[in-house]
Amino acid sequence: MSATLPTRETTGPGSGVSTGAGCCVPLVRTPLAEADAERLAAGFKAVADPTRLRLLSLIAGHDGAEACVCDLTEPVGLSQPTVSHHLKILVDAGLLTREKRGRWAYYAVVPDALEELGSVLVRPVGE
Amino acid sequence: MSATLPTRETTGPGSGVSTGAGCCVPLVRTPLAEADAERLAAGFKAVADPTRLRLLSLIAGHDGAEACVCDLTEPVGLSQPTVSHHLKILVDAGLLTREKRGRWAYYAVVPDALEELGSVLVRPVGE
Repeated sequence: MSATLPTRETTGPGSGVSTGAGCCVPLVRTPLAEADAERLAAGFKAVADPTRLRLLSLIAGHDGAEACVCDLTEPVGLSQPTVSHHLKILVDAGLLTREKRGRWAYYAVVPDALEELGSVLVRPVGE
Repeated sequence: MSATLPTRETTGPGSGVSTGAGCCVPLVRTPLAEADAERLAAGFKAVADPTRLRLLSLIAGHDGAEACVCDLTEPVGLSQPTVSHHLKILVDAGLLTREKRGRWAYYAVVPDALEELGSVLVRPVGE
């Protein structure tokens, strides 16, 4: 899992897959090129795990929208090495950032990367 | 892969995970319960494959927003049994419907199920 989700080119609920023509529209509107499909599938694979979804949710809801492993082991009921493994997968997919401060590494959600993934599946408003 | 995505309780860009309290908000706003995380992860697992993403895209873009296996093998360059295997995973996840008519089965996208998955990751507009 080494794919990194790129920054979205546009914002708003009608945005989604880059077609390579400067246009971003959701999956349900645009035939998906093979390279885009590979990249998006890697992102979905990172979130296709209940523990990783809960970690994303816990971090997003934590004070300052960041958390260290020490904040996360108890809520998910798993060991620190296991939680760190899941966090690494999310960092590698570009869905979390990791910053070392003192003894601990702090993780923060990358909202644009999550939104790029999600918007591929969501229809434009009003459709 | 036998999870079926439920119908969304509300619509609009602020909708997402059901918290069990009648409220639907995206992942980045709501701590995710274990059962919701399991169900959503099953849905993301179904779309975490480049061939299945391309099949969803091809079907959504096809005339009448439905397609049979015979329409899909050539665009993805795979055998009919392989395409049928991927389609079955998407049907089992509740992301496609399947209807037998004559010789062929026809598949259609379930937009609400895709949107429920996607909206979990997408922030509310204006946030």
